Amino acid sequence: MKHIAVLTGGGDCPGLNAVIRAVVRTASGYGLKVTGVRDGFKGLIHGHLTPLDLASASGLLHRGGTILGTTNRDNPFRYAVKEGDELRYIDMSGQVMANLKHWEIDGLIVIGGDGSLSIARDFHRLGLPVVGVPKTIDNDLSATDVTFGFDSAVTTAVEALDKLHTTAESHHRVMLLEVMGRYAGWIALHAGIAGGADVIVIPEIPYTTAKIIEAINRRLASGKRFSIIVVAEGAKPVGGDYTVQRIVPGSHEQLRLGGVSHRIAAEIEEQTGLETRVTILGHLQRGGSPTPRDRLLASRFGVHAVKMLISGEFGRMAALHGGDIVSVPLEEATGKLKTVPPDCRLVAEARCLDISFGD
Amino acid sequence: MKHIAVLTGGGDCPGLNAVIRAVVRTASGYGLKVTGVRDGFKGLIHGHLTPLDLASASGLLHRGGTILGTTNRDNPFRYAVKEGDELRYIDMSGQVMANLKHWEIDGLIVIGGDGSLSIARDFHRLGLPVVGVPKTIDNDLSATDVTFGFDSAVTTAVEALDKLHTTAESHHRVMLLEVMGRYAGWIALHAGIAGGADVIVIPEIPYTTAKIIEAINRRLASGKRFSIIVVAEGAKPVGGDYTVQRIVPGSHEQLRLGGVSHRIAAEIEEQTGLETRVTILGHLQRGGSPTPRDRLLASRFGVHAVKMLISGEFGRMAALHGGDIVSVPLEEATGKLKTVPPDCRLVAEARCLDISFGD
Amino acid sequence: MKHIAVLTGGGDCPGLNAVIRAVVRTASGYGLKVTGVRDGFKGLIHGHLTPLDLASASGLLHRGGTILGTTNRDNPFRYAVKEGDELRYIDMSGQVMANLKHWEIDGLIVIGGDGSLSIARDFHRLGLPVVGVPKTIDNDLSATDVTFGFDSAVTTAVEALDKLHTTAESHHRVMLLEVMGRYAGWIALHAGIAGGADVIVIPEIPYTTAKIIEAINRRLASGKRFSIIVVAEGAKPVGGDYTVQRIVPGSHEQLRLGGVSHRIAAEIEEQTGLETRVTILGHLQRGGSPTPRDRLLASRFGVHAVKMLISGEFGRMAALHGGDIVSVPLEEATGKLKTVPPDCRLVAEARCLDISFGD
Amino acid sequence: MKHIAVLTGGGDCPGLNAVIRAVVRTASGYGLKVTGVRDGFKGLIHGHLTPLDLASASGLLHRGGTILGTTNRDNPFRYAVKEGDELRYIDMSGQVMANLKHWEIDGLIVIGGDGSLSIARDFHRLGLPVVGVPKTIDNDLSATDVTFGFDSAVTTAVEALDKLHTTAESHHRVMLLEVMGRYAGWIALHAGIAGGADVIVIPEIPYTTAKIIEAINRRLASGKRFSIIVVAEGAKPVGGDYTVQRIVPGSHEQLRLGGVSHRIAAEIEEQTGLETRVTILGHLQRGGSPTPRDRLLASRFGVHAVKMLISGEFGRMAALHGGDIVSVPLEEATGKLKTVPPDCRLVAEARCLDISFGD
Repeated sequence: MKHIAVLTGGGDCPGLNAVIRAVVRTASGYGLKVTGVRDGFKGLIHGHLTPLDLASASGLLHRGGTILGTTNRDNPFRYAVKEGDELRYIDMSGQVMANLKHWEIDGLIVIGGDGSLSIARDFHRLGLPVVGVPKTIDNDLSATDVTFGFDSAVTTAVEALDKLHTTAESHHRVMLLEVMGRYAGWIALHAGIAGGADVIVIPEIPYTTAKIIEAINRRLASGKRFSIIVVAEGAKPVGGDYTVQRIVPGSHEQLRLGGVSHRIAAEIEEQTGLETRVTILGHLQRGGSPTPRDRLLASRFGVHAVKMLISGEFGRMAALHGGDIVSVPLEEATGKLKTVPPDCRLVAEARCLDISFGD
Repeated sequence: MKHIAVLTGGGDCPGLNAVIRAVVRTASGYGLKVTGVRDGFKGLIHGHLTPLDLASASGLLHRGGTILGTTNRDNPFRYAVKEGDELRYIDMSGQVMANLKHWEIDGLIVIGGDGSLSIARDFHRLGLPVVGVPKTIDNDLSATDVTFGFDSAVTTAVEALDKLHTTAESHHRVMLLEVMGRYAGWIALHAGIAGGADVIVIPEIPYTTAKIIEAINRRLASGKRFSIIVVAEGAKPVGGDYTVQRIVPGSHEQLRLGGVSHRIAAEIEEQTGLETRVTILGHLQRGGSPTPRDRLLASRFGVHAVKMLISGEFGRMAALHGGDIVSVPLEEATGKLKTVPPDCRLVAEARCLDISFGD
Repeated sequence: MKHIAVLTGGGDCPGLNAVIRAVVRTASGYGLKVTGVRDGFKGLIHGHLTPLDLASASGLLHRGGTILGTTNRDNPFRYAVKEGDELRYIDMSGQVMANLKHWEIDGLIVIGGDGSLSIARDFHRLGLPVVGVPKTIDNDLSATDVTFGFDSAVTTAVEALDKLHTTAESHHRVMLLEVMGRYAGWIALHAGIAGGADVIVIPEIPYTTAKIIEAINRRLASGKRFSIIVVAEGAKPVGGDYTVQRIVPGSHEQLRLGGVSHRIAAEIEEQTGLETRVTILGHLQRGGSPTPRDRLLASRFGVHAVKMLISGEFGRMAALHGGDIVSVPLEEATGKLKTVPPDCRLVAEARCLDISFGD
Repeated sequence: MKHIAVLTGGGDCPGLNAVIRAVVRTASGYGLKVTGVRDGFKGLIHGHLTPLDLASASGLLHRGGTILGTTNRDNPFRYAVKEGDELRYIDMSGQVMANLKHWEIDGLIVIGGDGSLSIARDFHRLGLPVVGVPKTIDNDLSATDVTFGFDSAVTTAVEALDKLHTTAESHHRVMLLEVMGRYAGWIALHAGIAGGADVIVIPEIPYTTAKIIEAINRRLASGKRFSIIVVAEGAKPVGGDYTVQRIVPGSHEQLRLGGVSHRIAAEIEEQTGLETRVTILGHLQRGGSPTPRDRLLASRFGVHAVKMLISGEFGRMAALHGGDIVSVPLEEATGKLKTVPPDCRLVAEARCLDISFGD
């Protein structure tokens, strides 16, 4: 192992740069050369590379986003090319394997979510010496206790809840905050408890508006004229259609179709007469400087990714188990979502705090 | 002057509690009794009062919102009452005058925006010993250099821009941030410059999407693959219809009708093919702890409001002129909006920094 | 169990109020009456009590400190009373037992560090139905994975490091930050990694100034003209006298005797000629709003403390094991310090990131 | 004017990089070439230069410190050189004039405090086309309403006060916070009011410990068992020796000699028996990301500095007057300190808020 490459794939996330920095610093200690790949797997196809050294990795620890760029699409195994007006999908994986050989890259680190790590797994099947670093703001990867970015996203959501609290209280309103979580309600659950929400609505526990209103009314009865509700974007009503539409936050489709928060808010306002307002956090959850905890975790993952390459643990992903960083096979780590078990302790504890889940 | 009352009216704003605290502390020094009025002018009609002393004013300096509660409506001169299914408007001002006399309140402090201050002015015409404290996040009151809440709102907007920056850069996207400012673009202008925006769109300078795209393309040409755009909610296209719809942020109407940001974003994406995303800050701008600057200004206003009552400067409003707090007649202070002069120095300076206004 | 009491002991810590709030909300759900004890164990001797209900527990989640007050001393088993000019120590534990009986308190929750929990253990030996909630900013309690307050303290330290970074870089200086940790270097270790320190000095790994300077010189050789050093207050030189003096941070003794940071700084400046500056965080680490993570953990502990009382798990302490809250015997939980194992993975990972421990 | 240079002198300050960025962007719009001078005036002597373009000025707006480096000493008119063990001072100003000519630099922008601006003034007397940008965290420059960095320093101090508040309240302590301000108490005054201090001690109003204790006792009498005191580092007792020692914050001299805060704290503790603790903010006030307000002001100054060079306004300094940026002669701007007038309105207002000045 003399020369390694690193790429970031999928949506951006606080801590990506901290991983890159840790990779460069660790590699430098072992005398390895490091190359950065621009814009995810696409860069491996087109040869968009950039050398990384201690100087270029300086000042990255607290910086959000990724200096390498990233993209949500562009799977080399199913690469979209335009032919006339139509898209055709071709397999560029062979090209990528040849490129890596040509560039004399002995090992690849893929930092990404389930999508990017699945591509990494497929490359490993082709024989590529690749390791993965898990990245998901939603904390929905089953193979690691937690990933970097999650603590930062929760912190952003709680800061928003602290702000909405004062408005809710001053105006005697119901305030809804919609946070990320299409399939898993972890952000809503953690932020809701830490931010003092009265109701938390997550995909794993189907809600009825009647039960949400019941919670609001219980507060009214006890003299509290405002309520705070946290809604995961993937929340769904009891008996509701579970086909989650792939609506991009902040897109005009989202505007047109409306999100679940707006539907809940409309029903609350209609049935209670209380002023009800929605705030959608959207991209704010992905951006900004990572929290200290995320910087620490991202740094540890970066160290391990290099060590895994050196010790030949290919086809594996760095993971946090207990307090330790270990490695798990990509084959096992991908394709499975970690959702909130509706009967888990944390949900039960939230109920003890008089938080309703609308069920 | 032995007994004074204080009320907060209109939308909530960081610093309201700091004014209340300063009123109580100053009044206490002069041996005055202080009564708080709940939920704005409505509380004067229905007698929703609460005594305020040093203990109840403790811990308020950094707290957002208003402990007195507030409401956006409820003008005693035109008070809405339901008769069957219809609303009828009646004049309750006489009732309020009688109430204040009955409660032996010798002076009233109204903390509010143009709407609340206009009501205060009307009560002054009836002979009420009333003084005003200006409050507007938008900074659109003509009679004071600046009001508290504005610095906090700008700070929240800049923090959001800092977060969007990392995502924009990582994904090579155009990111739009919609901030408050229905008629005046001050928040967008200040936050845009301080947050490193590439384009700022404000109500006072009608935009064309073509010009906005020109700015984006100029950046692309210089190697910058992302752009940040700040849009005031009241922005309007050249020749555009200026009838600003009263869309409540976070309401379902807003969702259905769509805001100006979504219209601009759709046009950019269509015409450039660049991924374009919208974030609407909405209520986050009103909430949370005031900045030190706003706490200082709010405290000074509170001190002066009491002094104005004591010295008999009724019908006047506290205002910041230069670095000093002075008082100005409510008759002159209300009914005039302070908008951004399109040819002002600050706009010119922003242009020097290569910020486009889409014009 | 109809009536429970709660007290906070030892140094204050972000999250104490969040525990109190969770205790009250949970107890309320079970129909229990809750009494707050003022100023730690002292309040049990003198009967300084205050009723706690949902209203008094409102708004506590994000508030630092403890509304109940606390004190670092006042052990009822060895209570200091002045006799003339001398202190005499008497056993007031019987009095406390009698008081609790008289007040009809069926169960007591003690939130505190090793000192307070040891007192709780001793009361349990006397038959008191008591449970503990662990509190230590230093994270040095052996029986729980982590305690609330630690994440907040690390966050404050990292924010300070981010600020010192810009000065160090601009002035080409060596900047030392002294953080808490008399016996355990956890704060220094976590904050140092997350804050990009070049050297971390902790009590568990004795340092030599020569090795610290070696790290600084290695940076100089690579073109980095500044260095950041994090020092735990209990750091000690190789062969150094390990009798840690009980110097109160911010006290005049500390000033006169000087802390370890100043000794290290003086030696660096003397031997390298580089400008070297010290910042002592001191009390800033204890104060302020808890991070979301600490709010969540504190809330969970509060829920469990009530449940432990109800289920009769007396003489035990709530603890975090893995992701779950469990209970452990106070007999086992107290009296043992959890220090940083010098050969632990986290230290090894830090070394991979080119962080020196001065050894 | 085809080629301009920019340097930063004196202590670092949030906003320096924002000025540099604005200079580069504005100059770029006018087609000027920009050169950065490293480490203040020293760089002009030794030719430590670096080209600045839009790429190198990217990402600077929110970054603390100065990418150009700075130094507190090194006056070219009195440049210290070592001869054996002694320092000799020589005039290198001619060398600097010759260098600038040789490098074909047509105009110089000096960003600095009173010291650096005085050097700029002296160079202007020699005929150098130089303009100044005022920089002082202390806000003690007489020729401008305010300078960038001040709002950031006040914000850091208020954040510290918010944290100390919770500890003071929980432990019933007196907490002292020492902030910057050797001659001018602006930071202490603004931060003290905005942070809810009970006592503010500034150089301009000599204190007696007896009066400070009087304020503490007045609080005790009203049931408040804690007090918060803000002390400017240059505070002095009535009749006290006004020769302010040049003690470097964080230096070992400071430790040995002790600062004014420690002297006050010792006296309070002795005379009242209340636990009293000192926190010295020191370098934390200089570092970190500038507030939005400081970013805006710094950007405006940068724009104007370039415009002043272009329009031939040499020997002048950018200044904020009212809301506008104007230029004033360096001859008038330097050498005069703006201190807090003891009878100014802001001090009077603070007294209305029941803040004592220890007088």
